[in-house]
Amino acid sequence: MRQIGIGIAGFGTIGAGVYKHLVGNRRLLCERLGLELSVRKIADLDHERPRPLMPPKSMLTKRWEDIVEDPEIQVAVELMGGIDLPLRYVMAAIEHGKIVVTANKALLAEHGAEIFRVATEKNVPVFFEAAVAGGVPIIKSLREAFVANHIRSIHGIVNGTSNYILTRMTQSGLGFAEALKEAQDAGYAEANPALDINGWDAAHKAIILASLAYGFWVNGKDIHVEGIESVTAADIEFAQKMGYKIKLLAVIKAEGDCEAPGSESKCPIEVRVHPTLVPQTHVLASVNGVFNAIAVHGDVVGETLFYGRGAGQDATASAVISDLAEAAVAIDTPRPNCGFQPHGLYGKCKPIDEIVSQYYLRLSVTDKPGVLAQIASLLASREIGISSVIQPEALEGEPVPLVLMVHDATQGQMNAAIGEIAALECVKRAPQVIRVEPFC
Amino acid sequence: MRQIGIGIAGFGTIGAGVYKHLVGNRRLLCERLGLELSVRKIADLDHERPRPLMPPKSMLTKRWEDIVEDPEIQVAVELMGGIDLPLRYVMAAIEHGKIVVTANKALLAEHGAEIFRVATEKNVPVFFEAAVAGGVPIIKSLREAFVANHIRSIHGIVNGTSNYILTRMTQSGLGFAEALKEAQDAGYAEANPALDINGWDAAHKAIILASLAYGFWVNGKDIHVEGIESVTAADIEFAQKMGYKIKLLAVIKAEGDCEAPGSESKCPIEVRVHPTLVPQTHVLASVNGVFNAIAVHGDVVGETLFYGRGAGQDATASAVISDLAEAAVAIDTPRPNCGFQPHGLYGKCKPIDEIVSQYYLRLSVTDKPGVLAQIASLLASREIGISSVIQPEALEGEPVPLVLMVHDATQGQMNAAIGEIAALECVKRAPQVIRVEPFC
Repeated sequence: MRQIGIGIAGFGTIGAGVYKHLVGNRRLLCERLGLELSVRKIADLDHERPRPLMPPKSMLTKRWEDIVEDPEIQVAVELMGGIDLPLRYVMAAIEHGKIVVTANKALLAEHGAEIFRVATEKNVPVFFEAAVAGGVPIIKSLREAFVANHIRSIHGIVNGTSNYILTRMTQSGLGFAEALKEAQDAGYAEANPALDINGWDAAHKAIILASLAYGFWVNGKDIHVEGIESVTAADIEFAQKMGYKIKLLAVIKAEGDCEAPGSESKCPIEVRVHPTLVPQTHVLASVNGVFNAIAVHGDVVGETLFYGRGAGQDATASAVISDLAEAAVAIDTPRPNCGFQPHGLYGKCKPIDEIVSQYYLRLSVTDKPGVLAQIASLLASREIGISSVIQPEALEGEPVPLVLMVHDATQGQMNAAIGEIAALECVKRAPQVIRVEPFC
Repeated sequence: MRQIGIGIAGFGTIGAGVYKHLVGNRRLLCERLGLELSVRKIADLDHERPRPLMPPKSMLTKRWEDIVEDPEIQVAVELMGGIDLPLRYVMAAIEHGKIVVTANKALLAEHGAEIFRVATEKNVPVFFEAAVAGGVPIIKSLREAFVANHIRSIHGIVNGTSNYILTRMTQSGLGFAEALKEAQDAGYAEANPALDINGWDAAHKAIILASLAYGFWVNGKDIHVEGIESVTAADIEFAQKMGYKIKLLAVIKAEGDCEAPGSESKCPIEVRVHPTLVPQTHVLASVNGVFNAIAVHGDVVGETLFYGRGAGQDATASAVISDLAEAAVAIDTPRPNCGFQPHGLYGKCKPIDEIVSQYYLRLSVTDKPGVLAQIASLLASREIGISSVIQPEALEGEPVPLVLMVHDATQGQMNAAIGEIAALECVKRAPQVIRVEPFC
């Protein structure tokens, strides 16, 4: 049986999972593919740490260059983590004509444009199914299944750690810090969870999804990213009373009528990551724990949703191996597309100040008559309407929470209004503002 | 720009949708694919009926042979409906070396083995994403994304009509006949809804999914199929009281340990379609209306779920066009796989009598002491345990409902027990038996 030579750089959790499943499901893979995915070299500095399945010593090296330079290797897998070293390795592999498979979302979000420019020049495919939402085949679906669609919107829960934390806060009334501690104890959050918590892991994935959907590489500097650190147990409780759950969403949207035939329109797209109130009736509100889910709305296919494990050794390995199978087919194929096809229908991101949204607004106010009237008239002066208000009880003499849901407003309008509200004497703490996606 | 010549046989709802979107999103498709999907001929007996977009007269023919015989056409699309004529057309297209795209689930379920045998001999790919769950890319996901996985189970809501009917019965307490009438009025059910209602449309899709997952063509005679006609409003209400919703599910399962290395085991798989009690906490329970959803559990990827529109002009056209894009790439590609790759790890279906399940059992009994004891001891004598019982109130003198949830039992055990229960003097009507999927 024909063998495809594979080199894996990075033998951490994911690399070890890929090796384990390639060996464990070897027979099934051979039968389905009619060829063998054969690991020839694994590069990692640490050869001693135990892995679920240890390869023969002769397969291990400490130099990624050994993979790039090996003529018996056709596919170079990048599972190193970090950015600089993976970039050097991936570029060297492309230069050597090797097909690249990577799970590295940060690498692609920051250097995707450069990587795919060179890959296209050299006619070398780069596959990256595992970079977004692990076992959920969202890259393949966007690239292939929805090829006929203008993508109207993508709403994704794409960071399992923050979804786990928000789920635990919702289910048990835990505060953020306690829920984070629980996630760390359960192995769902790193000792340094910064990228998960501050929204940037999700943002890297949003950049990749938006770039595929709209055909140009989105720059991280042009998007709006907020993490979940500021979400409180009180916000979750008030949101629930109003019929919502709070999720960290990647939101990607294009306006409907950008592509008038013959126009050279460059409609700005929205790309943002932030805690979001999602109606409890929407299926995304039911996605709990470390699971990921991505809702894609296409102009032809309508609403779709994909759900599965977004991280972890096994789910990620499943995605990497599916890329290896594609790579094996691609070796002998004329390549119309090396993994990213520019299609300049859109071409820029809308600044966050211009983005229209609904908002949840939680204030801490003095408990006396006239406060709501004062705030409502201030919002009205900025042309911001209020759709509902709740004012829960508080202890005698304490400031009381005042929770408002407000109609569509730009971020610019809201910032101006919030600045004025925060300065009111009756407002006792910094206002909490969370966006709402009504999904209608 | 390079053109791919396409012929479409069948210019009904789906064919008209494919043509409309190929033209409407032509610019986007050209940019993404780097080639043009160009419709050359459309075969249909009716040239007069209005379609959303009418092609030039010169494109229309009444003979499908004109497509098969046209050297300018590389891809033959089959959207005729029925079985005999589509089979002749598809076989003729393969003989002429044309890549085939079909949305015809009945054709593949009945003649898949034959079609793919000839396609493989002739080295001609056959694509069929639209045959199962319309806009949901489940075929591509099973074939490609989950290539590394032994599929443990597939649970699918794959018939939109019956899901609409069950949803309306659940939401409004309608009876089956009223809900069916409503579905017909809303255009979600055909004037003759037999295949939707009796489970066979879902069964055709189950056959295709099972065949892809397990590598051999499942025979319709070997599977168990029940429709939703016998589900009553009372069943839906009692199921809800016990924490379940009733869905028409396609259930496909394999036991875990079939592929001991080196074994030639042929583990039987389960393939069945029937009304099913689904726990309200499972996401499938929240799939309402005409939407489809398919949960796939793979040994590597874990739990996944796909959701979207399963039918209708647009969602189906989206899937057909994704197949056309694949076909365009496949024209110049060496073909390791013509659309179905046998991989004989399993190889036969388990007879329904041997399948173990949990059951919901609704009896209509005389309202007097000792009835439950009598039924419980009869079940116990067949080694069938009871997990819960509810007995709602009834009118004085009327038979009362008695609802039992029973533990794992084979269909054989249950049939024997039900036969005896039905013969009891205290049991007034034919027992209602519905399977339960506990998803754990």
